[in-house]
Amino acid sequence: MTSFRDDGAAALEWAAAYLEGVDGQRPVLSSVEPGAIRSALPERAPDTAEPFAAVLRDLDEILMPGLTHWQSPRYFAYFPSTGSGPGILAELLAAALNQVGILWRTSPALQELEEVTLAWLAELLGLPPGLHGHIEDSASSGLVTALAAARAAAPGRRVVVCSEHTHSSTAKAARLLELELRTVPGDEAFAMRPKSIDLADACALVATIGTTSSTAIDPVPLLADRCAAAGVWLHVDAAYAGSAAVCPELRPLFAGWERADSIGVNPHKWLLTPMDCSAFFTSRPDDLRQAFSLVPEYLRVDEDVVSLSEYAVPLGRRFRALKLWAVLRCYGREGLQAVIREHVRLAELFEEWVRAEPGWEVCAPRPFSLVCFRREGTDEENETLLERVNATGEVFLSHTRLDGRFVLRLAIGNARTTEDDVQLAWDVLRASCA
Amino acid sequence: MTSFRDDGAAALEWAAAYLEGVDGQRPVLSSVEPGAIRSALPERAPDTAEPFAAVLRDLDEILMPGLTHWQSPRYFAYFPSTGSGPGILAELLAAALNQVGILWRTSPALQELEEVTLAWLAELLGLPPGLHGHIEDSASSGLVTALAAARAAAPGRRVVVCSEHTHSSTAKAARLLELELRTVPGDEAFAMRPKSIDLADACALVATIGTTSSTAIDPVPLLADRCAAAGVWLHVDAAYAGSAAVCPELRPLFAGWERADSIGVNPHKWLLTPMDCSAFFTSRPDDLRQAFSLVPEYLRVDEDVVSLSEYAVPLGRRFRALKLWAVLRCYGREGLQAVIREHVRLAELFEEWVRAEPGWEVCAPRPFSLVCFRREGTDEENETLLERVNATGEVFLSHTRLDGRFVLRLAIGNARTTEDDVQLAWDVLRASCA
Repeated sequence: MTSFRDDGAAALEWAAAYLEGVDGQRPVLSSVEPGAIRSALPERAPDTAEPFAAVLRDLDEILMPGLTHWQSPRYFAYFPSTGSGPGILAELLAAALNQVGILWRTSPALQELEEVTLAWLAELLGLPPGLHGHIEDSASSGLVTALAAARAAAPGRRVVVCSEHTHSSTAKAARLLELELRTVPGDEAFAMRPKSIDLADACALVATIGTTSSTAIDPVPLLADRCAAAGVWLHVDAAYAGSAAVCPELRPLFAGWERADSIGVNPHKWLLTPMDCSAFFTSRPDDLRQAFSLVPEYLRVDEDVVSLSEYAVPLGRRFRALKLWAVLRCYGREGLQAVIREHVRLAELFEEWVRAEPGWEVCAPRPFSLVCFRREGTDEENETLLERVNATGEVFLSHTRLDGRFVLRLAIGNARTTEDDVQLAWDVLRASCA
Repeated sequence: MTSFRDDGAAALEWAAAYLEGVDGQRPVLSSVEPGAIRSALPERAPDTAEPFAAVLRDLDEILMPGLTHWQSPRYFAYFPSTGSGPGILAELLAAALNQVGILWRTSPALQELEEVTLAWLAELLGLPPGLHGHIEDSASSGLVTALAAARAAAPGRRVVVCSEHTHSSTAKAARLLELELRTVPGDEAFAMRPKSIDLADACALVATIGTTSSTAIDPVPLLADRCAAAGVWLHVDAAYAGSAAVCPELRPLFAGWERADSIGVNPHKWLLTPMDCSAFFTSRPDDLRQAFSLVPEYLRVDEDVVSLSEYAVPLGRRFRALKLWAVLRCYGREGLQAVIREHVRLAELFEEWVRAEPGWEVCAPRPFSLVCFRREGTDEENETLLERVNATGEVFLSHTRLDGRFVLRLAIGNARTTEDDVQLAWDVLRASCA
């Protein structure tokens, strides 16, 4: 254990120094050419053992240029995330414990902590008590889980309804499950147009609170009515935005989600939990079991306990609940609220700057912490602007297409981001317009 | 960062102390009643922040009794695994870096290290060069990936052929993909009976090298011939045993797997890597892309690079390659071979003890490190024996059913396991017979 302690101290120091310096990492978006990291690595594993120090050295010397710094406060692309201190250290503990949750008895603590932590999260988000909750690796896998359950619950109905702005994971899951995708056009705010919805032969409807493109909010209360009347499974994808429901003043944006059959929220996006941790809630766990449960002989024990593996694809699960538990405890309700509120405030601020500046335009409503905007001119000019901004290495922004136009996205979601960082992004954007 | 350094030192010390004492953890199999951990935890998250020390305290005081000690050298159930030092510390680093691999540019290092490390692993296992490799969370997810690709590659063919001893993940994946499962009976060694195989309308055949029940080996060379002739996708499930191919002397047991269309090997089982890390290899990556690739507008960049998310269900992936890379480097080929060889030696030894002792019987061939055995008497007596053994807390074994009989399984796969531990298991077994 000497080497574990010594190597561990070195790894911990490496991590601490990385996090201390991450606001100065340039470029935020890696600028390596494809293949550059690969070609810098040996072609074969070593024959004899190398010291752990060699791993740390190559992390600095070889891998570092190939990292895009998701931990940087100047990461504004896609949806930023934060690996917080408690979450990181809980991953160390989880790896040391190396629990493998194939069924309850192989780690009662893993399963029950996952159940309790998800109940805590549901309560924090204002969801009703009694929901089944478990952790998936990604919202994409959660979509597969939801749609598989919906398909099993409505034999013969093979259509999934979603909006043109629904995340591609719905199309991917539908393809996997051989369900037909029926896409509803968006309205002027990029939300699903209720009048265009046809639920004939549908087993599921996927509504989004906070679309990936522009954080639009589908009309969930109305969709819940329609789905309830038609016996259609309503899945609410709140992968990014869901975490914001910890703030009571933002709850109106989530109206109706408590009536969903299933809900996805990713604490690894906006709730300070390192990859990967995607929360899946359902009021219909028996339909999940119907779709997934298979218990072979060598796992037949503990007949009065339902193992979490009966609710989704993987048999084995790792101790992901530990990091979410650590985060919820070490921030507390108020700490989580403070992070979300500050991000929304910063996004409001940036939105005001854009609105106030001639030649710039806000392109979508901003309910959460993403601002969609563009500079006057052509799509090509905006695309060039984005490339120039990212090439400075100071910040990293991404884009989308709304109403057929190329639009820039500035998303705030890293706990280290300050007003100065957002100001810097705005300065870099304006300086890159020439 | 003061608190990250201080909390980190405390977490590291906790992990080191846990690993130092894990050989003395009693019981190996948690003996808590269902619900005991849940009821010891608060019903809600705290409103205000708690110190990380409170997490460590509750890990000791509340969660510890609910842990089954997978890291214990006396864990002989299912397939044991080892979270090795380098693997654990690499998880700390991965969480600190918090890379999110949604497409290549969001972490070139994540993607290219994953590609390189999987190529290293393929070479270590004696697989041919040029295979596509990526990491899945579990062999179950890998089965979904393989069968989805097989289904897409052979439209209209809806049958998956496997053996009665194939892992339940094949049935689960088939159900998800609405494929019909055609089960082939096993022979006296629990391998697939070739004469009973009917490939009509089959899109895939799942062969196993090292079944979960008894580590039986299906006749892969013959199955590869049959599949090639019929245009059927051959998936080789070597989730447990695959790691043993690092030893050239064990390679004959893997004959023919190089001709598979896809292969699954779990380094989180027998290759010292903490949960979760399941390697997926295929010679037909284009068929995976055919089944899974969907690139929405906001991810349309880097058109000349194929992101790993195009090969499987999840869009986002975490930096799992880092721990596998650390393990392969810090053990090296020779170190990995030494671990596998010692486990096989210990299993041979235990098998000899069982054979030599009147009243005991070895119930299946032992190609790797699992011994299937039983005591004379009824199934009920053997089941009682197993319960008594596990109730001592000294060791943890599991069971299966072979030829309709209740059979005990002693699996060796933890790097900390010594001959003394195996001797102890044997002593406990004999002492529990009374």
